[in-house]
Amino acid sequence: MTNPQSTFRNTSFHGPSILATRRKTIARTTIKTQLDQFRQTGTYSCFELKWHPTYEDKNFLWPVPLHLFWDSDLAKWIEGACYFLASEHDEEIDAAVKYMVETIRSAQGEDGYLNLHHTVVDPKGRWSNLRDLHELYNCGHLIEAALAHKDHYKNDLLLEPIEKYVRLIRKVFGPGEDQLHGFPGHPEIELALVRLYKATGNQDAYDLAQYFVEERGNPTGQEGKHYHDWEAEKRGDSAWLRPNHYSEARAHWYCQAHVPLLEQTTIEGHSVRALYLLTAVADLLAVEKSGQHAFAKSDQWLATVKRLWDNMVDRKMYVTGGVGAIKQWEGFGGDYFLPQGTDEGGCYAETCASIAVMFLAERMLELELDGRYGDMMELCLYNSVMTGMSLDGKSFTYVNQLASSDKDKSGRESWFWCACCPPNFSRLFGSLGGYLWHYGSNGNGTTTDDVEAFINVHLYTTAKLTFQVSDAASIEFEQKTNWPWEGNILFQMKNPAQIKTTIRLRIPAWAKGKKFTLTPSSPSSPMPIENGYITLDPAYVAANPAFSLQIHGFEPRYIEPHPYTNQRTLTLARGPIIYCVEDADNTWETNHFKDVVIKRDSAVREEQRPDDGGYVALHSTCWKRSLEDWETTTTVQKAGVEPGREVGTEEMRLEDEREIVFVPYYYRANRGGKGHMRVGLLRG
Amino acid sequence: MTNPQSTFRNTSFHGPSILATRRKTIARTTIKTQLDQFRQTGTYSCFELKWHPTYEDKNFLWPVPLHLFWDSDLAKWIEGACYFLASEHDEEIDAAVKYMVETIRSAQGEDGYLNLHHTVVDPKGRWSNLRDLHELYNCGHLIEAALAHKDHYKNDLLLEPIEKYVRLIRKVFGPGEDQLHGFPGHPEIELALVRLYKATGNQDAYDLAQYFVEERGNPTGQEGKHYHDWEAEKRGDSAWLRPNHYSEARAHWYCQAHVPLLEQTTIEGHSVRALYLLTAVADLLAVEKSGQHAFAKSDQWLATVKRLWDNMVDRKMYVTGGVGAIKQWEGFGGDYFLPQGTDEGGCYAETCASIAVMFLAERMLELELDGRYGDMMELCLYNSVMTGMSLDGKSFTYVNQLASSDKDKSGRESWFWCACCPPNFSRLFGSLGGYLWHYGSNGNGTTTDDVEAFINVHLYTTAKLTFQVSDAASIEFEQKTNWPWEGNILFQMKNPAQIKTTIRLRIPAWAKGKKFTLTPSSPSSPMPIENGYITLDPAYVAANPAFSLQIHGFEPRYIEPHPYTNQRTLTLARGPIIYCVEDADNTWETNHFKDVVIKRDSAVREEQRPDDGGYVALHSTCWKRSLEDWETTTTVQKAGVEPGREVGTEEMRLEDEREIVFVPYYYRANRGGKGHMRVGLLRG
Repeated sequence: MTNPQSTFRNTSFHGPSILATRRKTIARTTIKTQLDQFRQTGTYSCFELKWHPTYEDKNFLWPVPLHLFWDSDLAKWIEGACYFLASEHDEEIDAAVKYMVETIRSAQGEDGYLNLHHTVVDPKGRWSNLRDLHELYNCGHLIEAALAHKDHYKNDLLLEPIEKYVRLIRKVFGPGEDQLHGFPGHPEIELALVRLYKATGNQDAYDLAQYFVEERGNPTGQEGKHYHDWEAEKRGDSAWLRPNHYSEARAHWYCQAHVPLLEQTTIEGHSVRALYLLTAVADLLAVEKSGQHAFAKSDQWLATVKRLWDNMVDRKMYVTGGVGAIKQWEGFGGDYFLPQGTDEGGCYAETCASIAVMFLAERMLELELDGRYGDMMELCLYNSVMTGMSLDGKSFTYVNQLASSDKDKSGRESWFWCACCPPNFSRLFGSLGGYLWHYGSNGNGTTTDDVEAFINVHLYTTAKLTFQVSDAASIEFEQKTNWPWEGNILFQMKNPAQIKTTIRLRIPAWAKGKKFTLTPSSPSSPMPIENGYITLDPAYVAANPAFSLQIHGFEPRYIEPHPYTNQRTLTLARGPIIYCVEDADNTWETNHFKDVVIKRDSAVREEQRPDDGGYVALHSTCWKRSLEDWETTTTVQKAGVEPGREVGTEEMRLEDEREIVFVPYYYRANRGGKGHMRVGLLRG
Repeated sequence: MTNPQSTFRNTSFHGPSILATRRKTIARTTIKTQLDQFRQTGTYSCFELKWHPTYEDKNFLWPVPLHLFWDSDLAKWIEGACYFLASEHDEEIDAAVKYMVETIRSAQGEDGYLNLHHTVVDPKGRWSNLRDLHELYNCGHLIEAALAHKDHYKNDLLLEPIEKYVRLIRKVFGPGEDQLHGFPGHPEIELALVRLYKATGNQDAYDLAQYFVEERGNPTGQEGKHYHDWEAEKRGDSAWLRPNHYSEARAHWYCQAHVPLLEQTTIEGHSVRALYLLTAVADLLAVEKSGQHAFAKSDQWLATVKRLWDNMVDRKMYVTGGVGAIKQWEGFGGDYFLPQGTDEGGCYAETCASIAVMFLAERMLELELDGRYGDMMELCLYNSVMTGMSLDGKSFTYVNQLASSDKDKSGRESWFWCACCPPNFSRLFGSLGGYLWHYGSNGNGTTTDDVEAFINVHLYTTAKLTFQVSDAASIEFEQKTNWPWEGNILFQMKNPAQIKTTIRLRIPAWAKGKKFTLTPSSPSSPMPIENGYITLDPAYVAANPAFSLQIHGFEPRYIEPHPYTNQRTLTLARGPIIYCVEDADNTWETNHFKDVVIKRDSAVREEQRPDDGGYVALHSTCWKRSLEDWETTTTVQKAGVEPGREVGTEEMRLEDEREIVFVPYYYRANRGGKGHMRVGLLRG
């Protein structure tokens, strides 16, 4: 029972893969690019607590000042830096981490309080606006940074002040009469606190995490009022004053606090908040499952997480793994409301939200080994997440629409004023080894006898896992593959003979008819797939230290969205990769592929391209939907026909047959062009 | 150059028609039902200026208190009552009008000020919040009531205090240094002021109307600031405090004030506001065209109205004539964003908005005889407007979705706290005669020689028009038809022989191939259709005092929306009537016809039904879209497939072929049932 942010240390990406390529880019370029950004913006030295002109900037999205995320920006960077320092030392990064830790330590108040905005800019406002001001959110990221820092540096220089801060927060918030019954507007501290508890046994951390999760959405928590209403009244705010993200006053669903979480039936509001919150709940459940700490109503909590997960995946997720259709609240729309772009009614799919889907999926996989989580983790990783960073590691996306428009072209930025996505990307890739597999053993002493171990493999790539099963013995397990382009994976196991190891391998649901070939074959063939995984028992593992798994179904396939989305589109996919079209390849396009039609029975040709370590582009045939009838109709309409066209015999008239080239969605916006891109094309 | 609210007096609905039926229902039932509502709510006697418990109600939509519309509710009722009193005297209604007028007179301040809220509840707040508090809007409706009152009662009892109020407003607002450079959040007073000017020559009224229209959207109008921002600052409001209807702070587009109107390229925001405003501009243009008063930049103003009209009709209007897809701001979404109901992303189509389309269309027809306006006036009247009142005249709709859902079933209410739609419906139908035709002559004296007259017929029904062309002579023109069910219209003309009368008749664009038969035929046959109208010259009219027009194309037809709407639907229409399906006829339906499929080549059978004076129901064949594959996929999905289904060979699997019955959309929600209704059905 631990977290991927710790377990990744047992995994090395020792051979070529697209994941290794990205990790290298981040380690060599992105981490430093982000550091440069910090130096340019002033974030870098903010914990020296000097005044900065930005603090006076009024051009912000009320009530959030520009610098409100600086604590977490630095914390996420420290966390990511510590993960990458684990595999490769870098003087500049090491020095920057040490400087930041030193300033953070020096910025802490005597009582333990530690927050830039409420120390330098608004000292009187401390704990006055949990709904909007990210105070607890920032603390959450500091906790995560401190855990990463301790793992790497093996000292408490950062953890010590953070634990002091947690003790303060534990005093301020809780069910006691003299305590505030609050909870953060933006969840994050909850999952950080569970991690802290698991790493250190800090009981304050556990209690706070559970308290925040349970108190959330209490309609009468503070003096008979919803806490966020109560604190707004206390500030003297008008009951109708609301942040711009709130579509209406008291839209507590924006931060998943409209009713207690256990009563929520659909996933609502800001998607990153929703998923961070559910990740914390899943981790509390994992703690409970391990026997380390009881969690009241755990069956109800589990049912809640699964209910909201299902609502998200079945009705509120794009084919890319993106979530969040609505820009205003950066979050979920109604069931099946999944337009592809701004000009169709919206599409947000923030990079951080899909990273958070991965967080939650990983936690759920520890709770319940089920391919429904493993498949989603992979879908997000290779598509809605990986599209978030350019190949050169220097520019990013915040929003990942499925179709561009004149208003929102497909493109990247080098930074964002709310810079959550870039460092989130870095820290995910820094700890990526922790997402490939779960493993463990019952070995806990000097003897290696009767030890049973397991490895559950969720993601396929080229990587090596090494972990101790006793004081004297360790297991070394390696996978080698050209995934995600080919389905063959070679495994190599080295473990002491007396250890009984069970290996489980995920069979992706997209594999045609779930076909696979295990070599050597198992005596229990045909091997059953249970909840998306096959199980190799210790006998097989012992007899076959080297074996291979061939996942079939890498032929390009078409996917269509649920009919209730009112999207009549086809999306091309191959293995775990979702494809899109860009004008960089299809230079003839001038209208964001809005009228481009493909057919499910067209031949698709594969093209191996050498760039970015090699990838597969796809070629097929497309047509243009003629709007000539409509243009005519518009003229007629101007002479007064109703807003619609009288139906002719043809449903869709096609013209201009030509070749069309598809590239992976993650590859978009890397090669210039005019920013025209689309994932789902009209189904002819 | 006059308004339908005056010219209707020359028209009588002297024979049976659905319009006459509705008018009778309103005169006998609705006007009194509304009066009962006023008595129950306290609105009735509000101008006695006594305190009412409602004034303390805090359960309102900030900053709009429940009673804010009472002035205009009464005013609209008075206006409608005066229209109906013209055709049939009623003691109770007459007495109520007289009582209301008396109390309104007594409620006026010495300086002329006349507003319930700012007299009784918030005297200090006068002119402090033009953006939200409907002060000028209420005055606009009082002006319209006063004009209707004067026309009927032939006295100035109401007009006199209202003109005094207008003089006060003229002093307060304007370009002078000591004046406020404001304009109302909700346009209405502008069109009322132009009406007042036309009726009385009141120069203050003209100047104010033009000022409000020209000043609107000025980014630097008051002390270098947008007026609505300036007044908010003056009130001490936070810059981020905004009404619930505002999706974001400073969403001045909500009330068409984001930029000056001349610079607006798309129609945005609250649809009633947008259309009232454009109606005022069109009326200013009509004044200018008549030579009564100059209007600077009239060519630009005309281009603006037409540009925004086209944007609305071509891209933001439902097939029913409904406008406004977005509930939050009761208004327009992006181009082609036209989902049918709540569960598809929204649909609003407020009754008042379509009434306002009729207002604007009528004004445009006076400016430019073009069927594009006549057709839209008819489309709205018979569909999105007429659906707003029940057959018994006692219940109403505010929102007119094209598809019901569990959350928003198809149904009616007996009243609304913001009761704008019911009295708007009454006053429209009260003055409906004014929308049927425009007419006029150059006769202006005692002689009837050399007089030329014209009648432009926009709407077909059974009605008679009588108007003076000289002191001694009048024209009597009659149409008789079973419209909208049949296309044959008999015309009868009585006019002095020496008057040269030109008659123009609209040929609806939906008439198949614009076919029509004129009997007796014209010597200039085939008669050209110019801008949607045919012209009968004085020679024809003189030779044929009785003639008939047969409009062809009453066969049921299917309409599909623009492809960019992403709606793959068919809507059944017949003549000007748009059809829907209801579970009252199709009792087998349990899911709002969401999966019901029709095909364009299915036979459609007509059924004459005797109810409501007779109407045509339609019978065709439907299927159910099978979601079985999807339900299976959902199971697979739970084992982890991407959010979408791999494409099979069939695009849509159909089952359960059966008969389906269609009724006019205006007829919906009159016969019980479970509230399942849909206009556009899936296209098979």
